[in-house]
Amino acid sequence: MLVEGVHFDLTYMPLKHLGYKSVVVNLSDVYAMNAQPKQILVSFALSSRFSLEAVEELYAGMLMACEKYGVDLVGGDTTSSTSGLVISITAVGIADPGTVVYRSGAKETNLLCVSGDLGGAYMGLQILEREKTVFKENPKLQPDLEGKDYILERQLKPEARKDIIDLFKKLDIQPTAMIDISDGLASEILHICKNSKVGVELYEEKIPIDPLTYDTAREFDLDPTLCALSGGEDYELLFTIDLKDYDKVKNQLDFTVIGHITNESKGKLLVTKSGTVTELTAQGWDGLKK
Amino acid sequence: MLVEGVHFDLTYMPLKHLGYKSVVVNLSDVYAMNAQPKQILVSFALSSRFSLEAVEELYAGMLMACEKYGVDLVGGDTTSSTSGLVISITAVGIADPGTVVYRSGAKETNLLCVSGDLGGAYMGLQILEREKTVFKENPKLQPDLEGKDYILERQLKPEARKDIIDLFKKLDIQPTAMIDISDGLASEILHICKNSKVGVELYEEKIPIDPLTYDTAREFDLDPTLCALSGGEDYELLFTIDLKDYDKVKNQLDFTVIGHITNESKGKLLVTKSGTVTELTAQGWDGLKK
Repeated sequence: MLVEGVHFDLTYMPLKHLGYKSVVVNLSDVYAMNAQPKQILVSFALSSRFSLEAVEELYAGMLMACEKYGVDLVGGDTTSSTSGLVISITAVGIADPGTVVYRSGAKETNLLCVSGDLGGAYMGLQILEREKTVFKENPKLQPDLEGKDYILERQLKPEARKDIIDLFKKLDIQPTAMIDISDGLASEILHICKNSKVGVELYEEKIPIDPLTYDTAREFDLDPTLCALSGGEDYELLFTIDLKDYDKVKNQLDFTVIGHITNESKGKLLVTKSGTVTELTAQGWDGLKK
Repeated sequence: MLVEGVHFDLTYMPLKHLGYKSVVVNLSDVYAMNAQPKQILVSFALSSRFSLEAVEELYAGMLMACEKYGVDLVGGDTTSSTSGLVISITAVGIADPGTVVYRSGAKETNLLCVSGDLGGAYMGLQILEREKTVFKENPKLQPDLEGKDYILERQLKPEARKDIIDLFKKLDIQPTAMIDISDGLASEILHICKNSKVGVELYEEKIPIDPLTYDTAREFDLDPTLCALSGGEDYELLFTIDLKDYDKVKNQLDFTVIGHITNESKGKLLVTKSGTVTELTAQGWDGLKK
């Protein structure tokens, strides 16, 4: 469920992008079970300030995502709202009982892996928020978005990692636990640990961060690692694999091994670049906060 | 999708009832396809004025409906809202391809039938709105709801007609088209006509109205037939059957034959008690409006 003013800001989020993203984030949850989404149901509540054209833009974005991911829009509801726009989407998918993955299957000595890179969507949001503030102060100024395409796209037009699910099949990798990164790496790791009743050791130096994300974080006086740990909305896949599968992932550019699963009694730990060991919390790492 | 201030008013709708009703109205849509609901997904957006206890009340009502109808609550989402409460529910069910019913199957000479009685939920709402106004003017006055139990229950705690689906099976009746009455009889009849590309003749005198609904409508200076045609929220089933099935329905207290399907070229007609023929519109019958 996406709520205007909570999950999105129409000042800088075009409706077509919003429609696309709202579908993608739901499909991402299905892929995170090693499953294939097949159908979605879409419900909206909207106030009278939205024109028919606005609704058509929103649908156009949704249908674009449906086409890209091979999913049918099969139903839903449209209703009025007393204030802003609310979008609720349900995705239905199909999984093979033999290969479906839950959050609860991580085992001691498993490797903790992630697809793609992290923190970009959050830095894209920081850019958009900054330009919104600038625009409010002086509507004549053009937004300064130059060179930021990658992180803006991570925020405005994220993709679900269907390709990673296909790659698992091709490489014959069966993840033991998986989740998609919507709230931030730290919070998702803790979900897997809680559901699997295990501990973890995460290595800060292994967390994949794109150079543009890194430089933009520095520009905003933010710690890049904290952005990756707590930024969220990257929609990458976080998963655990058996040690014997290490050879299958080690040369894949799309995968990074970022840590390993330990006994629950060892706790959830982050090993920093300097070698310090600290507790991993959903808010990120206290030591990194400015 | 149910939106506070649009679909419900928490002034007189207890949260447990709201939870129950929000599930029931979704199951009703599944039964209206001659199918059995099996699972629901529930998403909420709520503002900080709702306490944990309030959310628990809402869930308690939802779970009560799940238990009654043999449905599992299997997922969903909870998020914050900038204003009121929004509830979005998706119901998933199972249908036999041989007996599933759509809105598009009505054929010329089919009989138009309805379960239960109509207009009660709307009159229950009128009572609640009246007592809300009275209470606002003088908070010391106790609401006057005496003797109105049936119609208040129709509004506050509606049921989905699972029993009718079971009865179809028992009596070996295969409806040709079906829909549940959420917006009002007239509007639902027009949906069937449009989807089936047929006309209809509806007989005013056949529309089943409970005596309490009838008397309360008169008390409010409203036409009882108009309340049944346009009131909505009765969650009864409107369906069409082949003429050969007439013997199976004619002695069932729960079914009323209220008209028949005609060729599309004949139009959508309401035959009034006085024998006048008038056009059926979603707003009811203009001749009945005060």
